[in-house]
Amino acid sequence: MTEPAAPIVILDKSQMAENIGAVARVMANFGLSELRLVSPRDGWPQERAWATASGADWVLDGVRVFGSVAEAVADLQTVFATTARSRETRQPVRTPREAARILYDDRASGLGVGLLFGGERAGLETSDIALTQGIVTIPIDPRHQSLNLAQAVAINAYEWRTLILDAPPPRFREAEPPAPGQLLLGMYEHLEAELDAGGFFHPPEKRPSMVQNLRVMLGRAGFTEQEVATFRGVITALSKGRGRVLAKLAAAKRQD
Amino acid sequence: MTEPAAPIVILDKSQMAENIGAVARVMANFGLSELRLVSPRDGWPQERAWATASGADWVLDGVRVFGSVAEAVADLQTVFATTARSRETRQPVRTPREAARILYDDRASGLGVGLLFGGERAGLETSDIALTQGIVTIPIDPRHQSLNLAQAVAINAYEWRTLILDAPPPRFREAEPPAPGQLLLGMYEHLEAELDAGGFFHPPEKRPSMVQNLRVMLGRAGFTEQEVATFRGVITALSKGRGRVLAKLAAAKRQD
Repeated sequence: MTEPAAPIVILDKSQMAENIGAVARVMANFGLSELRLVSPRDGWPQERAWATASGADWVLDGVRVFGSVAEAVADLQTVFATTARSRETRQPVRTPREAARILYDDRASGLGVGLLFGGERAGLETSDIALTQGIVTIPIDPRHQSLNLAQAVAINAYEWRTLILDAPPPRFREAEPPAPGQLLLGMYEHLEAELDAGGFFHPPEKRPSMVQNLRVMLGRAGFTEQEVATFRGVITALSKGRGRVLAKLAAAKRQD
Repeated sequence: MTEPAAPIVILDKSQMAENIGAVARVMANFGLSELRLVSPRDGWPQERAWATASGADWVLDGVRVFGSVAEAVADLQTVFATTARSRETRQPVRTPREAARILYDDRASGLGVGLLFGGERAGLETSDIALTQGIVTIPIDPRHQSLNLAQAVAINAYEWRTLILDAPPPRFREAEPPAPGQLLLGMYEHLEAELDAGGFFHPPEKRPSMVQNLRVMLGRAGFTEQEVATFRGVITALSKGRGRVLAKLAAAKRQD
């Protein structure tokens, strides 16, 4: 059996090129090779990354840079966000071991899978976490919560590697796979546009948190591509009367 | 630590009173005591049930009878449907061991939990499975799939009991619990009424399967009570323009 390709590692707004190199190194240690950077603070490429990668040049050479988390996960179906902030959101929270198993099964089922990590200082924004399929929380001592970025990647990569070596039979997805990130985002934006038109978001300053809550609660359902289309049909069906009847009203007024 | 109260067993359209008695017996074997019957074919009570319960009279004496699965699960938050038909629906499929663990954790968290079983011949209707939080499939040999109702209950009750004796520390839900069945059903019916008004369900003969697909895809999200309220607000916001503007149109016409 060929082992499933490893998850893609996505680093959001990483600050230090040395840390990017260190991440590339631990990725190589544990058999991961595909690295994506979202808005690295100092741009890309950065020579210092290669200096700290200890020869894991192929990881750095293959880096792809994106302007947002949404773009970086657009082609992926299963992405977990590694963060300790598990109580702020209603998304599933898993251990690294549990997450590795899901990524293993999903990768074996042909899905695009990834692990998202926040920047060294600020961590991940909740609006970006809302675009993932759940949270991975590393069980660290609460008296000393601060975990180095490369260590966080290492723990997850180690769990992946352990699983690969153990080579359990993958539990293939028999059902339709979930839709990739870009289709979900399109659906969210469709819903939000119609809700804007319907005056749903008030007071306006609450719009961001309301949008995020909607994305999280719908995201948990793991819609398939077909279900995304169905739900967009639902949005249209619920809102279309408004436009159509408004047009009739306007036409009636013109006749007055 | 007191052990969490065991899951409620729900039998849908059971045919033979003897089987109801046998179910009560294995429930008692493994420490389960609360039994609900949905539309038992021969009515209730049936003396033959007590005859086969082998002394588990307290289970049968406490039976509650319901007219529909929806009513039987109305006060429960986590219900799993035991069925082999896992490919027909997009609901999560779990082993009995996995399901027991979730029920254990949810029960310890104060939620109402249950296991739903179909009738001897017909099994569960997919529209009723759609009202549950997922499917439990017992790993039986595909060359001989037919499993006796009481055995199906027994396997699940045994897994529950094994877990209770092992007494792992419950993983309490820290987040808000999911809404009980009756609130979900109210939300579904609200959505479907508005979709009816918007002409979403066509052709009409496809309405039942479209309704079911919507319920399954939304049900997977496990909305909290607050999220049910939010989503009902979404439905209203999306559809309210229609009614309001239709009223204006009617008023405008009256003035002509």
